[in-house]
Amino acid sequence: MYTQRGHMTLPVEAGQESVVADLFERWQADALRDSDGTSMPDTLAQGDHDVYAIMCLVRADQDFANAHPEYLHRKYLMSFPVTAQDRQLTIIPLDGYSKDKYELDEISDPQTWWEVRDRTAGCVVPPSHWHYDPQTRQVHLIQTTPYHEYTVSFLAKQIWDSVSMYNALTNDWQGPRIKSVDPYHSQVRAHLKNYFANWLKTHPDTTVVRFTTFAYLFVIDSGENNQDIYRDWTGYGETVSPQALTEFKKQFGYALTPEDFVDAGYYNGTYKVPSNRYKDWMTFVQNVVVDFASELCDMAHQAGKRTAMFQGDHWIGTEPFLPCYEKIGIDINIGAVEDGVALRRLTDSPGEHVREARFYPYFFPDVFKPGNDPVAESMKNWTKIRRAMLRKPLDRIGYGGYLSLANQFPDFIDHVTEISKQFGEYLEMTRRTPSIKVPGKIAILNAWGQPRAWLQQQVRDQRFYIPPRPDVMELVGSNPLECLAGLPFDIQFISFDDILNHGIDPDVKAIINMGDANTAWSGGDCWADPQVIVKLREFVGNGGGLLGIGEPSAYQSDGRYFQLGDIFGLEKETSLTMGRVASPIQKNTEHYLYAFVTQDIDLGNPSYVYPQSQTLDVIAAHGQHIALSANQYGDGRSVYISSLPFSMHNAWLLEHVLIWLLKQEQVHLPFVSDNPMVDLACYPQTNHLAMTNSSDQVQTVKFLDEKGKKRQEQLQAYAWKWLSIG
Amino acid sequence: MYTQRGHMTLPVEAGQESVVADLFERWQADALRDSDGTSMPDTLAQGDHDVYAIMCLVRADQDFANAHPEYLHRKYLMSFPVTAQDRQLTIIPLDGYSKDKYELDEISDPQTWWEVRDRTAGCVVPPSHWHYDPQTRQVHLIQTTPYHEYTVSFLAKQIWDSVSMYNALTNDWQGPRIKSVDPYHSQVRAHLKNYFANWLKTHPDTTVVRFTTFAYLFVIDSGENNQDIYRDWTGYGETVSPQALTEFKKQFGYALTPEDFVDAGYYNGTYKVPSNRYKDWMTFVQNVVVDFASELCDMAHQAGKRTAMFQGDHWIGTEPFLPCYEKIGIDINIGAVEDGVALRRLTDSPGEHVREARFYPYFFPDVFKPGNDPVAESMKNWTKIRRAMLRKPLDRIGYGGYLSLANQFPDFIDHVTEISKQFGEYLEMTRRTPSIKVPGKIAILNAWGQPRAWLQQQVRDQRFYIPPRPDVMELVGSNPLECLAGLPFDIQFISFDDILNHGIDPDVKAIINMGDANTAWSGGDCWADPQVIVKLREFVGNGGGLLGIGEPSAYQSDGRYFQLGDIFGLEKETSLTMGRVASPIQKNTEHYLYAFVTQDIDLGNPSYVYPQSQTLDVIAAHGQHIALSANQYGDGRSVYISSLPFSMHNAWLLEHVLIWLLKQEQVHLPFVSDNPMVDLACYPQTNHLAMTNSSDQVQTVKFLDEKGKKRQEQLQAYAWKWLSIG
Repeated sequence: MYTQRGHMTLPVEAGQESVVADLFERWQADALRDSDGTSMPDTLAQGDHDVYAIMCLVRADQDFANAHPEYLHRKYLMSFPVTAQDRQLTIIPLDGYSKDKYELDEISDPQTWWEVRDRTAGCVVPPSHWHYDPQTRQVHLIQTTPYHEYTVSFLAKQIWDSVSMYNALTNDWQGPRIKSVDPYHSQVRAHLKNYFANWLKTHPDTTVVRFTTFAYLFVIDSGENNQDIYRDWTGYGETVSPQALTEFKKQFGYALTPEDFVDAGYYNGTYKVPSNRYKDWMTFVQNVVVDFASELCDMAHQAGKRTAMFQGDHWIGTEPFLPCYEKIGIDINIGAVEDGVALRRLTDSPGEHVREARFYPYFFPDVFKPGNDPVAESMKNWTKIRRAMLRKPLDRIGYGGYLSLANQFPDFIDHVTEISKQFGEYLEMTRRTPSIKVPGKIAILNAWGQPRAWLQQQVRDQRFYIPPRPDVMELVGSNPLECLAGLPFDIQFISFDDILNHGIDPDVKAIINMGDANTAWSGGDCWADPQVIVKLREFVGNGGGLLGIGEPSAYQSDGRYFQLGDIFGLEKETSLTMGRVASPIQKNTEHYLYAFVTQDIDLGNPSYVYPQSQTLDVIAAHGQHIALSANQYGDGRSVYISSLPFSMHNAWLLEHVLIWLLKQEQVHLPFVSDNPMVDLACYPQTNHLAMTNSSDQVQTVKFLDEKGKKRQEQLQAYAWKWLSIG
Repeated sequence: MYTQRGHMTLPVEAGQESVVADLFERWQADALRDSDGTSMPDTLAQGDHDVYAIMCLVRADQDFANAHPEYLHRKYLMSFPVTAQDRQLTIIPLDGYSKDKYELDEISDPQTWWEVRDRTAGCVVPPSHWHYDPQTRQVHLIQTTPYHEYTVSFLAKQIWDSVSMYNALTNDWQGPRIKSVDPYHSQVRAHLKNYFANWLKTHPDTTVVRFTTFAYLFVIDSGENNQDIYRDWTGYGETVSPQALTEFKKQFGYALTPEDFVDAGYYNGTYKVPSNRYKDWMTFVQNVVVDFASELCDMAHQAGKRTAMFQGDHWIGTEPFLPCYEKIGIDINIGAVEDGVALRRLTDSPGEHVREARFYPYFFPDVFKPGNDPVAESMKNWTKIRRAMLRKPLDRIGYGGYLSLANQFPDFIDHVTEISKQFGEYLEMTRRTPSIKVPGKIAILNAWGQPRAWLQQQVRDQRFYIPPRPDVMELVGSNPLECLAGLPFDIQFISFDDILNHGIDPDVKAIINMGDANTAWSGGDCWADPQVIVKLREFVGNGGGLLGIGEPSAYQSDGRYFQLGDIFGLEKETSLTMGRVASPIQKNTEHYLYAFVTQDIDLGNPSYVYPQSQTLDVIAAHGQHIALSANQYGDGRSVYISSLPFSMHNAWLLEHVLIWLLKQEQVHLPFVSDNPMVDLACYPQTNHLAMTNSSDQVQTVKFLDEKGKKRQEQLQAYAWKWLSIG
């Protein structure tokens, strides 16, 4: 995909033709695109460049959506719990929810599709004890128990698409409220395909159909005042319809209930350990969406156009790590990339498609307004992204939004010029060849495994951080994945099922289990299976490395909270072992890893983790709470870290922890940076060495080259420097 | 009990007669006692004073103990888990345990009384798969699964009493290692009664038999190097014998297993939610011990002597709050008192016995050695204790240990002289009459209730604090009970069973639930019963107050972690609700309680608790974590506090939180201190007002007197001042 012509997709805007022409050159563009809210001027539609045209089919035909409320996107919501004071109770299901966004789905019979629950007794209220009054839109319960809480799980129609709502409320977009239709219904699917066929005909200049994905939006629930009250960027909550549920039952042999979706109000957040029932539903949805998407791609291809998918909006069911993804026939996978993890989510997915990163910030008024500093926001992203680019190849970059807005910030224009120049050099110097990795594959073990690789592994600390812009997903707290995204290791994600069904790949030399207890990341009750524990003990016992961060293997059972506490040599105090006498922690300052625990290292809040082994080496502590420790188990090694929020220093520590776990610390590895702010990547096939400085200061870095010779280089602030080697 | 003659029990020491005579006067003593390690000189045994003589019958006759290893105290220990590498495995049960203290109890058939468990599979290993080899003292397992962990729960004989061991190791006592015998066995009981009858005859000068309690010691497990590895000052772990287990089965109709005692290595710590089986065992032990103790008391009474019980060593089964306690016939209950909670444990128990506080520090070399400051240690205790004395009457005080050691610290002698003077004034000014309380009873709800009132409610933070003397139980961290011990409220403890069986006493106007999740204090799975939740919602709904500290009502079920989260208006983030969108916390600085949150208030670590109600008033926060909040629920009020370690400022905050919960904040309550360092107590029956200054600075206090008149007083550092009123 390397082209001399350019490598960037530039958003266009009617009336800004000269700006576009200028930036097309300066930013080394080779493609133009429209955005939500902008359209392609005819004068730009032709030329020696690609023309991307946005296609979000489920919201493309508003006349159809308005004419067919029965096809609108639906979802299960749980009413907020209401406490009975008496033997009868009235619940208004939509109380607390946005009336602009939701309407009760009265088309589907409430007695069949809704569910009333006594949340105090933990049971379903029989349908004979409640009825829905369509006049008042209330649910009336009888024979309630005073001081019990009750909820109604109901189907809501979504009469305002979440993205349209966001743009109206945040970016002050005018225009009608957009509705989305559900392509599960064959009538909808037929109509949309027809619409698309016509669209293909009427867009001869379009060379790339840029699908704003395909069918179902990520989950955003909106409250009484239209504020976001729940978000799951990778959630399957908005995929439900009675028709699909009926078909599911036929295919899988059992029926899902409203509780499978509302999940006691937890809504199957991606961070939760998924139930098998919910995983079945995801499989069902994936099959539906992939089928629909591949039909659309075929149509585009037959019309002589390439296809792009925007990985981020309606991408539910078409996640690029799913095995079924490659059936769709996408030519260009466009990722919304704000950091290294998002980049790896784009670049690590299998298949032959082109990978294009859509950078933030979007040229929208929320950022591009007087007083804001879009360069600072972009630089923060860019330093993370280019670290990750060193590890896996990226093909293209791009932006979205109003060019006219960006053009009011000349320093931002210069900044993007520099980004694009650096990206061009990167393409030239690397030519899609791999950079050197530390020998030995690293596996990240969680409940999802590779199909949901490189998702942000939320931790609860993040909930207690209010970002400057609350609408932006800014992941602080424990984010070791971001540290890892830019490190020179071969990474794969594995699930507990993988381990049980296929064992551990012999190429894997170290396993990471991390995250809060009771999450899909740490594993929750996946640790209830003794076979999982045995496989990991065996792995480490035979020489493997194990890294735990946060609450690894946390599951209370038979005397242990950390099920692999024997390997780690420690235990977490969950108030069950308070009688165990604590000895003052002694740090082993002679340990290899001790040198990497500088004052810039941040290992989070007190861990409540204490030593429970004679052989444990405590390397860092927060008072008497273990913050970093290492242990030997059989022929293998383990390390525990209490928390590892992203920072360059923490990433550098993680690099050396993994090198130690891989038993490579005595090997004189080439191209290992001695400076936490500087990343190195060697491309032996092109004989180039990349060096990036992620700080705003001049940095010096020392390292060994491929011949074991000591080298030293200096880098200006934020510099990206290339050297010829070999 | 008030006597002009004196009010203190003085320890004696042979060869120190003149010191004794001097301090007898200066410290206003009226009784002499021997201590562990000292004996009563004949010259002091007679006179116008009581003579207390220590009697610890279970360790009194060492010849008998040595002759009868089959009667030694026994307990179940769990071997440390061992991982199988192969299909067979050898476990040495005592590995990791003190060989000086424990021997395997081979008298009881291992195949009958021991249990081998696969801790990875979570099951019992059938006896046919293991055998015990008495030659090697090893357990051999066959058909093991590689990488599973196995444990042996075995009966150990205790060949060295924990207290004797402590004194030998810490205080360098010489002399033989003391063994204790188990009075469960009728032969032992008969022998000890016989021994005691003889002792009574040979101790004509003794006026008070001071039982170092009766039968079973608190739990201390000792490790390989004789170090303490587990402690439970109120645990029932050392009460086991095959004979008792056999009788238990007859009485209760089912058999207990080793697992009921070793509890997966958690050993039924007092902080754990007790199982019904373990509660049955406690009842069984209580009946046994009370029966034995009352026989001994009868014998003492018949010999014309009074009886005292030391509440603290072998007090298992004779806890003074147990209903059966009053059957024993104790005349004087002596409490080991290091703080206000311990004092209330002594003074709040029902019955007509005399309450005597044995103060710390003991005159032992661990404290009374060059470079140490026993006055500082004592003053820290005394300021806490006298706050608590203001709320419930105490009758006597006393000390223990070597007078000769104390006498080497003249400032300590003066300090105790001052304590005893203050105590004498207290007796004179109060004459056992009650001080005024804020109207409305306060109930502390936990899994134990009143029978285990005023035990230290351990929290996990305490595990991570290493006290200056690790052998001393220094309870830091969240200890709101210590705050409460000195506040003017009527306190009772209630259990979940109380609520279920008898409802909530109408005199109770506020309920406190506090502690870590999964503990007896917070309640753990006691919250699984909807009836409990209903009772509390009803209580608050009808106007009651509810205070939660730490993790009140924590139990994950049906959408809530805090089961009373609706009353508190909040929820804890346990990584199940990370998708819920956080709004920045807004404090209500207008709230009544806001004035009490000064910079000296310490509300602990981040709570991970967030608002989940529109009506919630957040009053203090740790970043975005709620630290203190208030809510209205029906006609009642609730308050949540994240953590409340003891300090005078925190106690003062707690006082006003409770006043607010009792809806007394608009009433102009008399004798409420405006100064956190100063406590006030009014005795209307004697017309006296007590004022204590717990700080080392001069303090001024303002308050309303009984006529509503504003008063102001000044107190010197640590002063205790009395005023006449009325």
